[in-house]
Amino acid sequence: MEADILIRGCTILPMDGKLVIDKGLIVIENDRISYVGKVAGAPKIRAENVIEAHGKVAVPGLVNCHTHAAMTLLRGIGEDQDLKKWLNETIWPLEAKLKPSDIYDGALLGCLEMIKSGTTCFADMYFNEDATAKAVEETGLRAVLAPGILEAGNRERGEKYLKEGIKTAKKYHGSANGRISIRLGSHATYSCSPDLLRRVREAASALNVGIHMHIAESKEMVKLVKETYGLTPVELLDSIGFLKPDVLAAHCVYLSERERRLMAKHDVKVAYNPVANMKIALGIPKIKDFLDLGVTVGIGTDGPASNNTLDMLESAKFAALLQKVHYLDPTVLPAQQVLEMATIRGAEALGLDSDIGSLETGKKADIVLINFDKPHLTPTHDPYANIVYSAHGSDVEAVIVDGTILMEGGEVKTVDAEGVMRRAHRTALDLVER
Amino acid sequence: MEADILIRGCTILPMDGKLVIDKGLIVIENDRISYVGKVAGAPKIRAENVIEAHGKVAVPGLVNCHTHAAMTLLRGIGEDQDLKKWLNETIWPLEAKLKPSDIYDGALLGCLEMIKSGTTCFADMYFNEDATAKAVEETGLRAVLAPGILEAGNRERGEKYLKEGIKTAKKYHGSANGRISIRLGSHATYSCSPDLLRRVREAASALNVGIHMHIAESKEMVKLVKETYGLTPVELLDSIGFLKPDVLAAHCVYLSERERRLMAKHDVKVAYNPVANMKIALGIPKIKDFLDLGVTVGIGTDGPASNNTLDMLESAKFAALLQKVHYLDPTVLPAQQVLEMATIRGAEALGLDSDIGSLETGKKADIVLINFDKPHLTPTHDPYANIVYSAHGSDVEAVIVDGTILMEGGEVKTVDAEGVMRRAHRTALDLVER
Repeated sequence: MEADILIRGCTILPMDGKLVIDKGLIVIENDRISYVGKVAGAPKIRAENVIEAHGKVAVPGLVNCHTHAAMTLLRGIGEDQDLKKWLNETIWPLEAKLKPSDIYDGALLGCLEMIKSGTTCFADMYFNEDATAKAVEETGLRAVLAPGILEAGNRERGEKYLKEGIKTAKKYHGSANGRISIRLGSHATYSCSPDLLRRVREAASALNVGIHMHIAESKEMVKLVKETYGLTPVELLDSIGFLKPDVLAAHCVYLSERERRLMAKHDVKVAYNPVANMKIALGIPKIKDFLDLGVTVGIGTDGPASNNTLDMLESAKFAALLQKVHYLDPTVLPAQQVLEMATIRGAEALGLDSDIGSLETGKKADIVLINFDKPHLTPTHDPYANIVYSAHGSDVEAVIVDGTILMEGGEVKTVDAEGVMRRAHRTALDLVER
Repeated sequence: MEADILIRGCTILPMDGKLVIDKGLIVIENDRISYVGKVAGAPKIRAENVIEAHGKVAVPGLVNCHTHAAMTLLRGIGEDQDLKKWLNETIWPLEAKLKPSDIYDGALLGCLEMIKSGTTCFADMYFNEDATAKAVEETGLRAVLAPGILEAGNRERGEKYLKEGIKTAKKYHGSANGRISIRLGSHATYSCSPDLLRRVREAASALNVGIHMHIAESKEMVKLVKETYGLTPVELLDSIGFLKPDVLAAHCVYLSERERRLMAKHDVKVAYNPVANMKIALGIPKIKDFLDLGVTVGIGTDGPASNNTLDMLESAKFAALLQKVHYLDPTVLPAQQVLEMATIRGAEALGLDSDIGSLETGKKADIVLINFDKPHLTPTHDPYANIVYSAHGSDVEAVIVDGTILMEGGEVKTVDAEGVMRRAHRTALDLVER
């Protein structure tokens, strides 16, 4: 039997509800997994590329459910400020100066950082997603890109963004061997009118693409919506028939139990961003309550301007610990469940779980190898706990997406890492001085 | 002019209240810093050992104010359990089986992990601190070791531990060129009687060593003390004259404003352990309130069984973000202040700030170099933010303690890292099966 890639000798956490596999073997043919199991008893297979992975742990590629990758350029700018001041005086003025080539430079740096830290698929929302699509194509990652749509009081602006979003969807949805898909990124209920949201919903359904939006991130934004429309964000979305299983809702901090039930009823998916929720200090989403209602919850890093990393293993630890302390219950969100949220649940949240999120025969070969031969990952009493509570992105050693090796031995293969960093650094400094 | 070590070309964050130094130079003679400043204009100096550090950032060695290093052996055991169950069914039965040689193996792994992640000084509390002292001596770290003292209803046990603690203090305090100092580790007010605490206080004052203890970690423990003595932990300690500037209080979660004022009045120091507070889910200490009262607060990782790392840069990020979300204010604990807490304030908390905690002429040469040439540390708009919000222990490239290079280019020089990990792993598995 012939294959393209063999990964041999690793511990495998398939995240498919089955047990840990010791001394495992993963076989890849073209872009898909053709075998996952023990080395012992496996069919004899020859492959061009054999990765000897003793001492490594294989997990499904991590799925980042909410970010703005190009914002790497703004990492560390205007830190520790009040939200309004930060947005009005720092972020928005700089974003107004962004050219598509800047977004490409920033997204490329973001993709590099994600590969380095084990993310294989990310859900992005930003302006000029065509530039981000180019970065995704080149780096070999998988992404669900949502062109941002908002009017903020200006109807024409909303029309323009919606038109651009539809154009991007038609051009890129399903491109790069299916690695790129598109969603419409209606920004939020306070920045989009009900009329625009209705049109976004219609367009998404007609194009058969999903929707990615911010919901109830801050108390003030919720208040504004309530004052304007007499409804909370989720009630408003429900009233216009917006809520469907293809809606990915980021943040979901200020919600009533009734709103959470509405979301559960319509199978809306949640992107939980613990680091940004804490750093911007807007509040703590009741993730346990969502899970108790059967809602699918993935984890996001949010953008590097409000995190400041794209490190999903870091966010996984924050995800678990923030809920534990919020509910004053250490049994909430145990390690295995959190790793599920960072992999298979994230894939579900993006509607991609038939292809990614677990290591199973027939699924796309999106695989990450973590090197456990480190002091902070010794001993290994519990591989899930080691990954969620002890590992960081820097422990990721190899990354495969769509059957292609993007990183091996810590070295990124698809782009010139030094060049990407140098260019992004220059662009970021130039942006500030423009 | 002759020196032992030159570090040249790095950005320096001296953490002495002065500005960032670009293209800096640090000169080390014997165990102390003899120059910190710009390369340009510095006196001409020759040194045996020149570290070219362009692209690196030099910070004072990180100070971990509360841990139990040997508990690396228990990392990942009995995860996500209720505290009582975790202690009664997992941690305490295993600790009862610990031999001094196990503690040495675990502490050695802990020291290795700390060197790797940029900690140069740690405050430890555990049984058999003689074994930990041996690990500290060999690895070259600086430590403040507190032999644990508790009776838990058994008066004789308390006597025995106090006697042993005094013996350890006499033997090790000031040893290893002053790298090791000792404190008495009276465990907590619920596990030590007022009588024992009085005797600990007297012994510490007589020996001129400090005290390290847990204070008000959980609601239940506070309740127990109040029911037993009619006083809260801090009131009890105040009533017996225990509170002095040499007391290092870990956790400090369940305290009244009055108790915080009492602690401030007596200049008691606080070790803030954000990761463990969240993971064990006992509550959130009001660190901003302590800071507003002028209390010195350092950061601790707590033991690896409740964290699960000894990574101070990770804890620094948690330290900032937990307070921001608790006070719903993103301006609380800005990055520079948090890095101060992880360095100079930590040194103050341990009473060592005349020797360590900042990069200044005359201070001990405890220095860490962080490599900023990484995707997640690009661009560098703000070096403090990059270190606190983006960096992890794995970005530390070189560590110097007491003028000795413990790690360079990521390679630990003082111990055989592979051997230490292998032995600790075997010991940990054996411990579980014993």
